Amino acid sequence: MLILALDTATEQGSLALVAADRLLLEYSLESPGAYLTRLMPGVEALLQATGRRLEEVGAIAVSQGPGNFTGLRLGLATAKGLAWALACPLVAVPTLEVLAAQLPFQPHPVGVLLDAKRQEVFFGLFRGRPERPEPLADPIRLPVSLLPPRLKPPLTLTGPGLNAYRDFLEEVLPRDIHWAPPEIRYPRAFTVARLARWRLEQGLTTPPAQLTPTYLRPAL
Amino acid sequence: MLILALDTATEQGSLALVAADRLLLEYSLESPGAYLTRLMPGVEALLQATGRRLEEVGAIAVSQGPGNFTGLRLGLATAKGLAWALACPLVAVPTLEVLAAQLPFQPHPVGVLLDAKRQEVFFGLFRGRPERPEPLADPIRLPVSLLPPRLKPPLTLTGPGLNAYRDFLEEVLPRDIHWAPPEIRYPRAFTVARLARWRLEQGLTTPPAQLTPTYLRPAL
Repeated sequence: MLILALDTATEQGSLALVAADRLLLEYSLESPGAYLTRLMPGVEALLQATGRRLEEVGAIAVSQGPGNFTGLRLGLATAKGLAWALACPLVAVPTLEVLAAQLPFQPHPVGVLLDAKRQEVFFGLFRGRPERPEPLADPIRLPVSLLPPRLKPPLTLTGPGLNAYRDFLEEVLPRDIHWAPPEIRYPRAFTVARLARWRLEQGLTTPPAQLTPTYLRPAL
Repeated sequence: MLILALDTATEQGSLALVAADRLLLEYSLESPGAYLTRLMPGVEALLQATGRRLEEVGAIAVSQGPGNFTGLRLGLATAKGLAWALACPLVAVPTLEVLAAQLPFQPHPVGVLLDAKRQEVFFGLFRGRPERPEPLADPIRLPVSLLPPRLKPPLTLTGPGLNAYRDFLEEVLPRDIHWAPPEIRYPRAFTVARLARWRLEQGLTTPPAQLTPTYLRPAL
């Protein structure tokens, strides 16, 4: 079964078409503000390049946030429209989980940072598991200045928040906290598809009308 | 400086345009036999979608193999042609190293398997390092049937060879060997670009006329 997956939670959008565990095509583009014009043409280009028809898509997977407000709204609207039109299951995957899943088999916890703007971050803490990351705490939103006391080694950090607040974090964090390499700090649609497949198998789908982006309240 | 990176060593090709540590665009496509028709148009589409000109590219990075014979020849020919025409540095990155780098911070060694066809595999063994993976042995080519004695837990396996020889490996390998999730088993051009940047900083470039694919001799 084909899964069409999309992630628009950050400034780097990602689209993928996945068959079973095989990637047919993935397209990741740094496109701040371009989701409105690039998302549906991107889906069309994806199908054309792989010689598939939209009707062959058996499920839509989407990154649910937290993250970029406008990006998420456009991504979820597109995913809901497609799932509704195709009458196929819609699966939402937490964006923080997607990022943690891109660091499998870590010997210690994985902290995920997303830029929440205005000097705030979304923060999630996970333990790596072979199947999918296990949350160690509820995800929160907090000022980046209040983050360091929560980050204790041994720890691996990932997420676009590392780029957004690099200077501050480099200054205050202990040296023995690992920073994920840049190429895995943004969510990939292929990862969204894999985590969605697990949810599909568990029956964890969402009626299109009920899906909303995850917005985290401030922790304090 | 922009790096244009390409990987054609497996049946899943990948192209990326990277600025410093930022991905501008990455395109990964399952395209057995389609490199001849898709590679240069892919580069053109990459530039067009990001609004960049070919003259802005400051270095070409290419996955050197081992891997798919025809794919590597076309990928290297394209990379050499571009580097020569642009008079910019050309950097070759071992494909096995690219795949190991996609599993950072592993607590134990990473084994990388590429399909060498005819029931053979290319095999490399690495230790994860923050900067780049460190080879623990020379890469070899050997019949997949002779591989199991070399795979002792604790170990994490990755690479397209896991897909090519899945049934056999699942049957004979110990349960406590980790298998990388499917989305990181194929080389990404973004990873090629990161490892190339490190080499560029060390002056490890290759004159276009001298670059050839890595073909490994049989180990036995």
